[in-house]
Amino acid sequence: MPKEENIGITVKKSEDMPEWYSQVCQKAELADYAPVKGCMVIRPNGYAVWQKIQDYFNERLKRLNVRNAYFPLFIPESFFKKEAEHAEGFKLEVAWLDKDVTKEGERLAVRPTSETIIYDSYSRWVRSHRDLPLRINQWCNIVRWEAAQTKLFLRSREFLWQEGHCVYETEKECHKETIKILKEYKKLAEDLLSIPVIIGKKTEKEKFAGAKATYTIESFMPDGKALQCGTSHDLGQGFAKSFNIKFIGKDEKEHIAWQNSWGFSTRLIGGLVMTHSDDKGLVLPPDVAETKVVIIPILFENTKDKVIEKAKQIGKQLKSLNAIYDTREEYTPGWKYSEWEMKGIPLRIEVGPRDLEKNQVIIVRRDTGEKITCPETEIKNKVKQILNQMQEDMLNKARSFLKESIMETSDWDAFESMIKARKIVLAPHCGEAGCEDMIKDKTEGASTRCIPLDNSKAEGKCIHCDKKAKYKVYFSKSY
Amino acid sequence: MPKEENIGITVKKSEDMPEWYSQVCQKAELADYAPVKGCMVIRPNGYAVWQKIQDYFNERLKRLNVRNAYFPLFIPESFFKKEAEHAEGFKLEVAWLDKDVTKEGERLAVRPTSETIIYDSYSRWVRSHRDLPLRINQWCNIVRWEAAQTKLFLRSREFLWQEGHCVYETEKECHKETIKILKEYKKLAEDLLSIPVIIGKKTEKEKFAGAKATYTIESFMPDGKALQCGTSHDLGQGFAKSFNIKFIGKDEKEHIAWQNSWGFSTRLIGGLVMTHSDDKGLVLPPDVAETKVVIIPILFENTKDKVIEKAKQIGKQLKSLNAIYDTREEYTPGWKYSEWEMKGIPLRIEVGPRDLEKNQVIIVRRDTGEKITCPETEIKNKVKQILNQMQEDMLNKARSFLKESIMETSDWDAFESMIKARKIVLAPHCGEAGCEDMIKDKTEGASTRCIPLDNSKAEGKCIHCDKKAKYKVYFSKSY
Repeated sequence: MPKEENIGITVKKSEDMPEWYSQVCQKAELADYAPVKGCMVIRPNGYAVWQKIQDYFNERLKRLNVRNAYFPLFIPESFFKKEAEHAEGFKLEVAWLDKDVTKEGERLAVRPTSETIIYDSYSRWVRSHRDLPLRINQWCNIVRWEAAQTKLFLRSREFLWQEGHCVYETEKECHKETIKILKEYKKLAEDLLSIPVIIGKKTEKEKFAGAKATYTIESFMPDGKALQCGTSHDLGQGFAKSFNIKFIGKDEKEHIAWQNSWGFSTRLIGGLVMTHSDDKGLVLPPDVAETKVVIIPILFENTKDKVIEKAKQIGKQLKSLNAIYDTREEYTPGWKYSEWEMKGIPLRIEVGPRDLEKNQVIIVRRDTGEKITCPETEIKNKVKQILNQMQEDMLNKARSFLKESIMETSDWDAFESMIKARKIVLAPHCGEAGCEDMIKDKTEGASTRCIPLDNSKAEGKCIHCDKKAKYKVYFSKSY
Repeated sequence: MPKEENIGITVKKSEDMPEWYSQVCQKAELADYAPVKGCMVIRPNGYAVWQKIQDYFNERLKRLNVRNAYFPLFIPESFFKKEAEHAEGFKLEVAWLDKDVTKEGERLAVRPTSETIIYDSYSRWVRSHRDLPLRINQWCNIVRWEAAQTKLFLRSREFLWQEGHCVYETEKECHKETIKILKEYKKLAEDLLSIPVIIGKKTEKEKFAGAKATYTIESFMPDGKALQCGTSHDLGQGFAKSFNIKFIGKDEKEHIAWQNSWGFSTRLIGGLVMTHSDDKGLVLPPDVAETKVVIIPILFENTKDKVIEKAKQIGKQLKSLNAIYDTREEYTPGWKYSEWEMKGIPLRIEVGPRDLEKNQVIIVRRDTGEKITCPETEIKNKVKQILNQMQEDMLNKARSFLKESIMETSDWDAFESMIKARKIVLAPHCGEAGCEDMIKDKTEGASTRCIPLDNSKAEGKCIHCDKKAKYKVYFSKSY
């Protein structure tokens, strides 16, 4: 008989969110710290969520005529230098290979992003307007040698992501698809992950190094900090000029191509954990849960066989939901409840002798704890219906929180108190990087998140300085 | 009107296989050489094949209760040193990170294989017999800094693979599953890729560094060289001892665990290309072809509209096969035939005005060139039936070649001529590494491929030296 040790989370989400978060990730076996500083191990429970995200997005990519490919992990130093802003933006975060490896050749970087190595290939592949649009995505690992403390999924030196890289004939088409992808990201966050997001444009200060404009989806965590969940960059012709991506147009003249790039990473899993989970552990929206149901028989000596028989039958019925049938006799039902709650299985079905007599089972929702009595004959339909409801309810709950968290002001004192109260604040701004820096200093960390795509017109002065406001922009603390 | 330049392969497979191979890979747009020496770009057509392999194998892994996960790219030097044979085996191929990156810390390797970094985690995860068997797989990139010339898919410094790593309570269970995976690999090669393989055990000289025994699937290429397509290693307790992977057994005592590891890589795609393709370009078994059919309308001025309409209808019917409907008017049908043959689309459907009158189409098989007349009403079924037939025929054709290539002898002179005639030869051997080296020297490259799992009993002397034969083993030249 194993010791029934306390497997629960030892701190409350509301009291110490960083520690709570780290415990949920580890105890739900989503991820683990690696022996290499700054790195993480994505365990099977965590990787299963990533696979759900991949499956969903691969399906969408197919509809968007984007094909997957794979480009080298290593990037020659000279490639970075070709696009000056890009090189400057990444220079502190690049891990280089040892010179004993590269020998007489030039330095090789482990990719912190792949624009340069991919566009080198594109310069050879794109010849004519017939080769456009060219739309390629890659799923890969990325390395950014940051000094900041490791947070599982949220900040690590290596992470997994997808990066899309497209080439177009015209500026208009390029911009249109940059926004189209942004909307795909919003859809993914909301429909699949039940994470509501704000969409908008990054300020000049916050945009991607080398881009003309960066668009973003921003979610808002329960501790009042925004999490950037995905970005879509309109690259204009900057990289195309540096990498010589030209095509002969329908007019038989040579033109410089237009490009975008876009990505989201395993960071999404961090957002998922923080948004939905609770003091008992992980809560997953059913659509990303690999195992959607766990069946727990309540065993007493004289009814044991019957209960086990029934639980097995139910398990078979729910096989397509990857149901776990927890037959372990060395643990009590209560201990099992806690374990599967910790691991975020969306539904628990309890099968006991009294239920058996009444030809029913008890279904328990992980997000609300609600207990639903269900006739045996209706289990399969009922389970599917509850799972759908749960997916929707989780999005709505997170939506309410986001809605409550958004405020608007054009008064500095009000702005400061709202930021202090951990809100996300829409305020007029002059658009200058130095002013953004000062606001960040004064508020102990509030930065611009994004300029809304609509409702960005500002009148009067900047929230902070005396200059004329250029636009309205969301400010908040962030991850 | 684009120039109808020659897009065909300029050398024959039978005359210059290396050049032919490189042209097929590049002209079918499977892969491209990267600007980084030794690396390759896997283009969308090539990556689509890899995805088919992944989809197939992920399905099999699920049945085998193996779950996917992701471990760090970087491995501390001290981890390699823990298993002496392993460290020795990989020391020449490891790419290290620059010391400016790792600073005061120890050297970090870019993973050449992940036993050590994974087993460090396992030593923390495995506590009790209840944690076993532990079965995890990862799909990732691997780096081995080889000096040899780059061959797309076959030899490159970075490649993609899957690596499975399992832990068991008993030696017997471990061995049983090591062989089970080997048979899964055989099934994948034969059923999905139409590549017949020989299965067996590697000699001591050729086994994986740190393994107790290595099992392999070996295919045989048309130029008379074997290609190792996947290996399954019975690791015994070597790594478990070095990494301290212990568990409390049902007997409440501490035991050292048993392990295996197994992998196949994007090299399989190289084997696929060499086995089936021809002087016109790529030939793909239908099951790994993303696009299974291309529809080409034969356009004349007065029947154009009708033909286009019919071709479109057929395209819709075959949507589930990802059919391409080639509407381009600036190319002749003949040019299109060549292009799609080059790219390995399994079936071509020609729709011309005369066919239209007869309510039929012409279906052309990529592998045989056979033209099949098919009534319009039966297209969908007929196409599926031909695709299945083609998958089977391609395996059978490759099987005949393999069968013809296998010879057996216990006479050295016969052995030498068979090797010279580029056969794969089963011969008795003493089992000593030095003797294997001498045979390799004398035959200009023939090495042991594997000891058959059955029929390995040898009598008399070694094929080469005077020692007593230990077993029969396959010899051949190899990639």
